[in-house]
Amino acid sequence: MNLEQIVSELQPPDEAWRERAREHTAQLVMPTRALGRLHDLVEQLCAVSRTLQPSVEKKAFLVMAGDHGVAANAVSAYPQEVTGQMVATFLRGGAAINVLAKLVDADVEVVDVGIIPDLEPTTLEGGEALIVRKMGHGTEDITVGPAMSRERARRCVETGFDIASERFRKGVELLGTGDMGIGNTTPSAAVAAAITGHAPEHIVGRGTGVDEQGLTRKREAVSRALAHNRPDPRDGLDVLAKVGGFELGAIAGSILAAAQAHKPVVVDGFISTAGALLAVTLCPAARGYIIAAHLSSETGHRLMLEHLRLEPLLQLDLRLGEGSGGALAMQLVEASVRIFREMMTFESAGVSKT
Amino acid sequence: MNLEQIVSELQPPDEAWRERAREHTAQLVMPTRALGRLHDLVEQLCAVSRTLQPSVEKKAFLVMAGDHGVAANAVSAYPQEVTGQMVATFLRGGAAINVLAKLVDADVEVVDVGIIPDLEPTTLEGGEALIVRKMGHGTEDITVGPAMSRERARRCVETGFDIASERFRKGVELLGTGDMGIGNTTPSAAVAAAITGHAPEHIVGRGTGVDEQGLTRKREAVSRALAHNRPDPRDGLDVLAKVGGFELGAIAGSILAAAQAHKPVVVDGFISTAGALLAVTLCPAARGYIIAAHLSSETGHRLMLEHLRLEPLLQLDLRLGEGSGGALAMQLVEASVRIFREMMTFESAGVSKT
Repeated sequence: MNLEQIVSELQPPDEAWRERAREHTAQLVMPTRALGRLHDLVEQLCAVSRTLQPSVEKKAFLVMAGDHGVAANAVSAYPQEVTGQMVATFLRGGAAINVLAKLVDADVEVVDVGIIPDLEPTTLEGGEALIVRKMGHGTEDITVGPAMSRERARRCVETGFDIASERFRKGVELLGTGDMGIGNTTPSAAVAAAITGHAPEHIVGRGTGVDEQGLTRKREAVSRALAHNRPDPRDGLDVLAKVGGFELGAIAGSILAAAQAHKPVVVDGFISTAGALLAVTLCPAARGYIIAAHLSSETGHRLMLEHLRLEPLLQLDLRLGEGSGGALAMQLVEASVRIFREMMTFESAGVSKT
Repeated sequence: MNLEQIVSELQPPDEAWRERAREHTAQLVMPTRALGRLHDLVEQLCAVSRTLQPSVEKKAFLVMAGDHGVAANAVSAYPQEVTGQMVATFLRGGAAINVLAKLVDADVEVVDVGIIPDLEPTTLEGGEALIVRKMGHGTEDITVGPAMSRERARRCVETGFDIASERFRKGVELLGTGDMGIGNTTPSAAVAAAITGHAPEHIVGRGTGVDEQGLTRKREAVSRALAHNRPDPRDGLDVLAKVGGFELGAIAGSILAAAQAHKPVVVDGFISTAGALLAVTLCPAARGYIIAAHLSSETGHRLMLEHLRLEPLLQLDLRLGEGSGGALAMQLVEASVRIFREMMTFESAGVSKT
């Protein structure tokens, strides 16, 4: 499917199913909506999947990995070679996302959408998988020109869409977005500043932990990227091509795939939310399929979520990415479903109402 | 053990173990402390249990149930008979705490410390258990006199201590507190107002969902209880006896047991935190063993946690009790332990540091 087809066919979640779900919640043996946001969460799932029997048994993460030309401007606390090293670590099961995905019984697949080193694809057999769909060996430096061509940007989104769609066809019921890419808080901040209209100084943070000078360099890099490229905030592909990154486009595509498949997608932190901004700019109907996992400690994340009108589930000062916060949020999604499906009602429990 | 012995022997968590744990965290393959509060959490566990191999495999909830004479003042949205009905629901596995405890693989035992109906004790064999240790058939009405005698208050605490201690001896590694008792937000608010010194209007909330008039009645009930009984805020047993409830004392005792056993205890919402205020008033060294599960939507809970200098993990507009928020927090505790124990280090993963 090409992007125009995808976008033209997407429908928002079904409010009639949300209403039916609310009626069921009201019968559960507890004071009215006493579990607060857990009720909202499972009712969103009902609206997303058009059902009163929501299920999130089969969970998966797609960790989109790419490198960034802007890293040449010393915007990260880590050398660029760490992108490939961390991808290798994912494949050995040793990173945070592996540990947390295992805890929530989710598969982890890594998609190389454009890291610099060439790693061999692997398949998932109780282990971790690498899918190789390289859009390049790192993007161009956004401070001096576009990150990629518009055609490449489209391919990033369509690739993320295709890979995620295949997972949904194979039975995945809850998708988590993830990312890896040294330097990727810089293009994410540029995407966020472009789309939300907030100034770079309110968006750009320390990422993996740059010092005061590094922070200044990042802000300047984002300002230069915006001034030089002049992305059109209403045109998601233009923003992605000019100041984005391969993995941001792939994340956006995977979010569109969730919406198209009528499945919920848990969006992790700063990078993933930049992907969500792109997805919702491309197609506003996708918004209702998104579960915002957490409020990152990275500057600007709150403004991004506010622009999307999404309320994060957790606030734990996370700033790792990979999908790690998404895995923690999946625990709450699971809990919300169990409450909805397994609790007795006032009637079945024989408990007096008010 | 009697209360004076317990209190005199308790030691706070061991800061040397917390420091060792921080050193291990620094080696994990991620930017410095990038998982924020998850690191603090597992390091607390290391300090609590004096180990670098914290384990929370075996989890249990003790749901303390009692009735309240103050319910005669129409301070709840539900009739008093609901206490016994909900205890029966716990034993059938149909309440929120059953569903959420099952999700985190925790046992649920209910302790009747003084509900009005007499239910048969049951034992735990893959099912749910009721332990009967009645301190009375409901407390006295605190608006006209003390809830119970000082001797009875002591027995509540010691009973909670004994029951929880036995669970720790049997291998429980993480305890969750829970409560049931129609009307119990009123004595909990009275305990909180007495100990924190905040005025009842800043502490008293709608509990299970009383209307504006009910809220006024609750505030008046708490004000009368405090004016009539004049509890000594430095004397936990005095506060418990005069304006508390049987389950509040038992929760306090179970928290002291955790501290004595060097095990962490997850404290649920408004009622459980009133129990924690009593425990810490009785023995300040107990504070460091407590994990505050969540910030309840019940008025005053934030002030109680601030008094205890505890930062809640979750904020999901929960206001149910039973231990439900504690079960959700246990998911994060488990995640923090897995991260600490299962992630690779920079060295083992071969990843470049800054």
